[in-house]
Amino acid sequence: MATVGVVGSGAVGSYYGALLARAGHDVRFLMRRDLDAVRTAGLAIRSKDGDFQLEDVPAFAHPADIGPVDWVLCALKATSLNDMPALVAPLLRPGTRIIAMMNGLGIEERFVQEFPGHPVFGGMAFVCLNRGEPGVVHHIDYGRVSIGHLGDDPNEVTRAAALLAEAGVETVPAPNLLQARWEKLCWNIPFSGLSVAAGGVGTATILGDAGLSALAHAAILEVAAAANADFVAHGVQGQIDGHDMAARMFAQTATMGDYRPSMLIDYLNSAPMEVDAILAEPCRRAAALGAPTPVVDAIRALVAFAGRRNRGEATLLTRA
Amino acid sequence: MATVGVVGSGAVGSYYGALLARAGHDVRFLMRRDLDAVRTAGLAIRSKDGDFQLEDVPAFAHPADIGPVDWVLCALKATSLNDMPALVAPLLRPGTRIIAMMNGLGIEERFVQEFPGHPVFGGMAFVCLNRGEPGVVHHIDYGRVSIGHLGDDPNEVTRAAALLAEAGVETVPAPNLLQARWEKLCWNIPFSGLSVAAGGVGTATILGDAGLSALAHAAILEVAAAANADFVAHGVQGQIDGHDMAARMFAQTATMGDYRPSMLIDYLNSAPMEVDAILAEPCRRAAALGAPTPVVDAIRALVAFAGRRNRGEATLLTRA
Repeated sequence: MATVGVVGSGAVGSYYGALLARAGHDVRFLMRRDLDAVRTAGLAIRSKDGDFQLEDVPAFAHPADIGPVDWVLCALKATSLNDMPALVAPLLRPGTRIIAMMNGLGIEERFVQEFPGHPVFGGMAFVCLNRGEPGVVHHIDYGRVSIGHLGDDPNEVTRAAALLAEAGVETVPAPNLLQARWEKLCWNIPFSGLSVAAGGVGTATILGDAGLSALAHAAILEVAAAANADFVAHGVQGQIDGHDMAARMFAQTATMGDYRPSMLIDYLNSAPMEVDAILAEPCRRAAALGAPTPVVDAIRALVAFAGRRNRGEATLLTRA
Repeated sequence: MATVGVVGSGAVGSYYGALLARAGHDVRFLMRRDLDAVRTAGLAIRSKDGDFQLEDVPAFAHPADIGPVDWVLCALKATSLNDMPALVAPLLRPGTRIIAMMNGLGIEERFVQEFPGHPVFGGMAFVCLNRGEPGVVHHIDYGRVSIGHLGDDPNEVTRAAALLAEAGVETVPAPNLLQARWEKLCWNIPFSGLSVAAGGVGTATILGDAGLSALAHAAILEVAAAANADFVAHGVQGQIDGHDMAARMFAQTATMGDYRPSMLIDYLNSAPMEVDAILAEPCRRAAALGAPTPVVDAIRALVAFAGRRNRGEATLLTRA
């Protein structure tokens, strides 16, 4: 049994932390919104795989109260990346491993910059989760986690994959972290991006509109081309076939119902959106590689503008 | 003095028709929304160049009541193009000249298909007009009309330009109609398109947002490249310098205040938008020429989706 500190106990952190706790690990949650509810009533997972409830959950408001652990599972929103060092540092002792289950590119590099010497992993969750009332997480579908190691050490990948797999998570060891990151973006960029750029729609609306679907397809081709250029630049074997990837992403999305990506939920709640991690950083990296991403650029600009509207920096005209 | 039949008496048709009537021509208006108001109280132009009022305006509900004229000024919305033949035919006698003051590409070709043998002109109005209450048109800024002839006969261009110029319109004879059409699209595509794609914003909001401005710039480059390919295909001399064109379009737009393009007004009124004429047909033509227009494609898809929402075929998710 390992000690695990979950930093960022939103839907993703709470769900995977709860699975690890159910498997017998000593899981301690750093919480904000749900702290009181979880301390009082525990943590409830309402899952298509079967509901379960954790009682007497060690939930804390301050990372120093958690103390050093074997594993840190960091599931902060990418918009809180600058808070990460102060939140994670108190949980580290020599040898603590860190899994960054966050959106974006270059996330793991940031962890290793802050905490050199610690093994750092990227966890790409392909899962449909939504937060319910405080203390409740709704697990709607999927749950698979690709996990890669910054440095691509196969022994490290196996170790992290085992932690999750033994807790019942469908785990895909990623021989190459860069590849796994870009593959996640092949879904996130078109579907998270368009869900907001189109004004606030779920995935079924995107799939049901020929024009939006064509945009999603074009965006996936651009992401695949940028990824392939990045693979070449990093000496990574293998290339993404954009059309094949698009077909897979569309087929998977078709089984999700009218799913609301977290970016859409943030938009609807006027909460900060992960524009930089999901849209802007991939565009910057593609541009540096000479890979054009005009459709993704368009989506990014429109999502960023929607964010400005949410922050009251711009307004829409009202109907006559 | 000429007889002029105005078909499609929205803001554009009413404004230029009123200028021609003020100059002494016998101008007869085919009207729908404003018919009763104009018959009762005349037509009022509230203009930055000075207000004026036409009394005893010959306004009609049926084209047969107008009868044959020397000039047809057709200012229908492009969405009503299929109504055009029945509306225009009763106004024709041999030699009647037709000015299509409408948005889009391939408009004049459609007229000549319907009415072979009639000289057909394209009028590209660069003007800020909005309809007021029935019988009132607000002329906010500009007013320049580029006019070209389908066939590019310089004598015909001179004749049509003279008609407008003598009525006080700033007139730019266009030696080449195709070129003039594409130049108009260099404004219309980015600014009309983004005003709707961004959720309903005026031109000042587009210019004030770095991301939207960058999109507009990218769209102009795509339109210019498609135009240049079209010029080569048609043996037209001259090419559009995209960056130069973008600089000019931005500079002009900066003087417009927070202008609402007609597409935005249609969107806000849930009226049919000229998506096909302004966005889709240029994309189709560019695609046929092998000129990629990914940013314009994205704008087109989002505007088309906005149109579907206006028609009740799709809905946005509501905020929490």
